[in-house]
Amino acid sequence: MQKSTGCRARLGEIKTPHGNLPTPVFMPVGSQGTVKAITPEQLREIGIRLILANTYHLYLRPGVEIIRNAGGLHRFMSWDKAILTDSGGFQIFSLARLREINEEGVRFRSHIDGSEHFITPEMAIRLQEDIGADIIMALDICPSIQESDNKIREATARTHRWAERCLKVHSRSDQALFGIIQGGFSPQLRRESVRQMVAMDFPGYAIGGLSLGEPKEITFQIIDITSELLPEEKPRYLMGVGAPDDILKAVEMGIDMFDSVLPTRVARNGGLFTDKGRINIRNSTWKDLFSPIDPECSCYACRNFSAAYLHHLFRAEELLGYTLATIHNLTFMHRFMERLRNSIAQGNFLAFKQDFLVRYRPTDEKIRLAQKQKWLERWENTEQEN
Amino acid sequence: MQKSTGCRARLGEIKTPHGNLPTPVFMPVGSQGTVKAITPEQLREIGIRLILANTYHLYLRPGVEIIRNAGGLHRFMSWDKAILTDSGGFQIFSLARLREINEEGVRFRSHIDGSEHFITPEMAIRLQEDIGADIIMALDICPSIQESDNKIREATARTHRWAERCLKVHSRSDQALFGIIQGGFSPQLRRESVRQMVAMDFPGYAIGGLSLGEPKEITFQIIDITSELLPEEKPRYLMGVGAPDDILKAVEMGIDMFDSVLPTRVARNGGLFTDKGRINIRNSTWKDLFSPIDPECSCYACRNFSAAYLHHLFRAEELLGYTLATIHNLTFMHRFMERLRNSIAQGNFLAFKQDFLVRYRPTDEKIRLAQKQKWLERWENTEQEN
Repeated sequence: MQKSTGCRARLGEIKTPHGNLPTPVFMPVGSQGTVKAITPEQLREIGIRLILANTYHLYLRPGVEIIRNAGGLHRFMSWDKAILTDSGGFQIFSLARLREINEEGVRFRSHIDGSEHFITPEMAIRLQEDIGADIIMALDICPSIQESDNKIREATARTHRWAERCLKVHSRSDQALFGIIQGGFSPQLRRESVRQMVAMDFPGYAIGGLSLGEPKEITFQIIDITSELLPEEKPRYLMGVGAPDDILKAVEMGIDMFDSVLPTRVARNGGLFTDKGRINIRNSTWKDLFSPIDPECSCYACRNFSAAYLHHLFRAEELLGYTLATIHNLTFMHRFMERLRNSIAQGNFLAFKQDFLVRYRPTDEKIRLAQKQKWLERWENTEQEN
Repeated sequence: MQKSTGCRARLGEIKTPHGNLPTPVFMPVGSQGTVKAITPEQLREIGIRLILANTYHLYLRPGVEIIRNAGGLHRFMSWDKAILTDSGGFQIFSLARLREINEEGVRFRSHIDGSEHFITPEMAIRLQEDIGADIIMALDICPSIQESDNKIREATARTHRWAERCLKVHSRSDQALFGIIQGGFSPQLRRESVRQMVAMDFPGYAIGGLSLGEPKEITFQIIDITSELLPEEKPRYLMGVGAPDDILKAVEMGIDMFDSVLPTRVARNGGLFTDKGRINIRNSTWKDLFSPIDPECSCYACRNFSAAYLHHLFRAEELLGYTLATIHNLTFMHRFMERLRNSIAQGNFLAFKQDFLVRYRPTDEKIRLAQKQKWLERWENTEQEN
């Protein structure tokens, strides 16, 4: 572990049975056992060493029995590098329908076919042991941001009791089980959550329940106080955050791990990351630019294709467009994290951060919230269709 | 050119500025400047050396000026092997709306935005010279199969006059311009078409106006008499035919070149080619088969993934499913053509054909016609939406 001077940014390494991972690290998301639109070979070529998969999705489809019988998720999806699975908590509370929580567990209906399911903390661990990821997560409760203080206090306390039950049944010593800090937007509850979770001595800690649509000021206030209280020697994972400007701020607060669907999801809408911010390749500006989107980018897309060609693929709704944009964005994130780690190693993280932010035009806060809203609504509509 | 004994199957080679092509050859289709769902790198890995692109599609989107300014289609799509473009004739008569043909050319509306266009034989060549394929096609008229004998006679005669105009303006000596034989289902008209086209001395000849929904008996009767009359020393290209069993029959009649969307289109619907026929990976039979679809197949999909994983990808509507299925089917076609050429080289084509057909269950004629009908209707509906 190497720390920066003047801020809490730090370098580290996470050892897994499928390779060691330098941190800070960004994880692409492969919810259903595939990072959307690209092959595992393309992921490897980019240099990705760790991806996230969703227990909730895999449990519903194809079912964990299939994955176990296939020899685990690594073999099923032909990925020999590291995998982290979340516990399903977040998806149960954001995608599934008709949730009913009691002390034992949570009852919900599938967003796919409306079928009813009941998951306990013990089951969440069993499912993740069968899936066989290198890092797995305790089952947590993610209350919506509109809940009352009292409800959030209860949910947080229950998350702690569930974490203990997860620890108790977890038996695979080749998997690291991380605990998740909850506590809503209350500094006091967050401190209490850290105290209780740290007492259970997990090998790593995630910060959950953030980036749900709340103002960014609050997000970072909570990250700040939570990260500060977590033990130095263990990895800190900020769930669901992945915009480059947000990663810089969180790394400065001592965060080591990130995941987000952002680079892959916006790729499929034609949004491409550059050092100057996100551009949209569908825009007619790009229709006759015969050089790559980013001449300094070394990805397969930028080495071989012009902006004009990518523009054409998106206008013509060709699947290759989604593939190339995904490769580009994941390469951008991978290179970005490399540069970020180098700056920490060289003791100039704050200068790197400032340089980057001067050039990078982040997505406007209003647009960001509108997109988030649209996303949440889309899911609600999906649910109603089933 | 090597001929078989006992039948007209033959080996040959087509020389192009982007590599020489052993025949019989099958061309994957990349209508819009991309073979759907895979990268040019994946195409190369399969061993593909020649693809077909559609002048009609590229003319409408992104427009031929963009492709010319990009340095031609090879550079635009980052494909350094050979390309053939069709003239747009078939698409104008199958996809476009409100066609009006006169001696000068054909007026039509785009199936994309309803915009009006007028294409002459001279323009069809100019467009193809700008696109820059290695092999280009004369503009032909493809009457529907319900037309009267008189209409077909007129259309065929006009196709001959248009072919002469194409020859006259074609100026790029690095491109081979092929003529297209028409004549509907009349042996007499086909013979006349061959006579007239051969007199113009094209470097290669295509057989057009077949496989439009007519009974297969008629298709092959026309292929048989047409192929027999074409000059020995020039390549013979049967347009739009690509099912393995049909290729075998046509090769036996002396055909050298084939193109079809079949292997890529059915791949995206979960249809996978095997030596035993086409299977559908969506079928629940495959949900827990943890070996590859075809253990003898050497493609990226079969080397790395089980049938169960492909089944999951298709059920979960993951784009990777389309990519893997496309790689598998194009590898199957590529290997099939290799085996077919080897059998001709070894003088046992007829045994190869018989062996293959004994094992291969072709798609049922009734299903085939129903699918064709559905496809035609879908296009009609698409047109009405615009």
